[in-house]
Amino acid sequence: MRYQLYYWTGIQGRGEFVRLALEDAGADYVDVARVEGDRAMRPFLDGKMAGARPFAPPFLKAGRSVIAQVANILHFLGPPLALVPKAESRRLQALQWQLTIADAVAEVHDNHHPVAGSLYYEEQRDEAIRRAEVFRRERLPRFLGYFEQMLEAAGGRHALGRHSYVDLSLFQLVRGLEYAYPKAMRRLARRTTRLRALADRIEQRPNIAAYIASPRRIAFNTQGIFRHYPELDG
Amino acid sequence: MRYQLYYWTGIQGRGEFVRLALEDAGADYVDVARVEGDRAMRPFLDGKMAGARPFAPPFLKAGRSVIAQVANILHFLGPPLALVPKAESRRLQALQWQLTIADAVAEVHDNHHPVAGSLYYEEQRDEAIRRAEVFRRERLPRFLGYFEQMLEAAGGRHALGRHSYVDLSLFQLVRGLEYAYPKAMRRLARRTTRLRALADRIEQRPNIAAYIASPRRIAFNTQGIFRHYPELDG
Repeated sequence: MRYQLYYWTGIQGRGEFVRLALEDAGADYVDVARVEGDRAMRPFLDGKMAGARPFAPPFLKAGRSVIAQVANILHFLGPPLALVPKAESRRLQALQWQLTIADAVAEVHDNHHPVAGSLYYEEQRDEAIRRAEVFRRERLPRFLGYFEQMLEAAGGRHALGRHSYVDLSLFQLVRGLEYAYPKAMRRLARRTTRLRALADRIEQRPNIAAYIASPRRIAFNTQGIFRHYPELDG
Repeated sequence: MRYQLYYWTGIQGRGEFVRLALEDAGADYVDVARVEGDRAMRPFLDGKMAGARPFAPPFLKAGRSVIAQVANILHFLGPPLALVPKAESRRLQALQWQLTIADAVAEVHDNHHPVAGSLYYEEQRDEAIRRAEVFRRERLPRFLGYFEQMLEAAGGRHALGRHSYVDLSLFQLVRGLEYAYPKAMRRLARRTTRLRALADRIEQRPNIAAYIASPRRIAFNTQGIFRHYPELDG
């Protein structure tokens, strides 16, 4: 199966959670928009292609199926990529983790776009500063504390007791937060030892290390979801 | 199977999407916090109970399993409540719908809480007014236009071509938006005929009609996710 991933070029964004799974598993895939341009996504978004129409990228074409929403894509890819335990109850746990990671990612996005995704950051900078301050104080410790304790409860090394797409997503979340909020993350270092160790281990997996060293890994930047604006880091 | 639903008392909130599925299917369930108080949720949220610890309500206890995240709960309940087609590909389509509904719900929530969930509306009213204006102009038509066209593509009567938990969630989304943004929704009436007809049909299903007439259905109010503040409706 050759998978076709569709996501905006130039940013890691939400597509990165899918890319990491495909790369880690050594899957055969094409990052279509990076070959054909963002316009390749348009017919799908306009409902002119067969399969479930996506509301937004990323989406994955697998044979005749079109699958959208990151957590849904990973739920679908988990079994064929051997990135989730087989039991239905364990797949549900993976999905629950992933949906909570998605909630954290959405809050991170809204920190720099609290008013509207269609306005520039500079047009909502005052609101962003106010929002990010509460995020750093309340939400960031709450999300990371939750993930850290869940990791501990699962044995400390893996979200699901064995390697899975959830570990890959936690790696991306940790690295994204470290890029966007370096000061806030340093303050939380002692309370996130398991998460940071997990991120380090993921980074050393051969396929992930090769991916990160390749031009396929786009650098974090201030166009993506995880953005570093010093004024939002306190 | 007697299901135990845990959600904040006093609001429909995200718990309502689960309640509607349980009620429509005539499932045996207890709305635990409404019997024992919100404190009944605390041991689960603190990670002191077996099962996957929830980050936040709602969560469902089914036998020994604890399942959190609305889309995950409905994905789990779909087969036993006969509220989703059986094929895996169709379950993925249902999950994709539900996750996009969840995205819309999250944006609606943030319209009245753009800075922080921990601050009162009155403390972020200026930001809310600014945000809701863009939401009404851009995001509301985009979400509803997407759902309307998806409904049309599926035959016009059901999101998945047959009754499912997605239809129940679309009902809740439409009624919530009509409560929160009556003027904006009237302006979109001609472009949402299928969605509104679907909501009317759901409301007439015997179990849903009985539920809505019962004291179990909490009225929409300005503590929940769908809130009516005239200044946010333009």
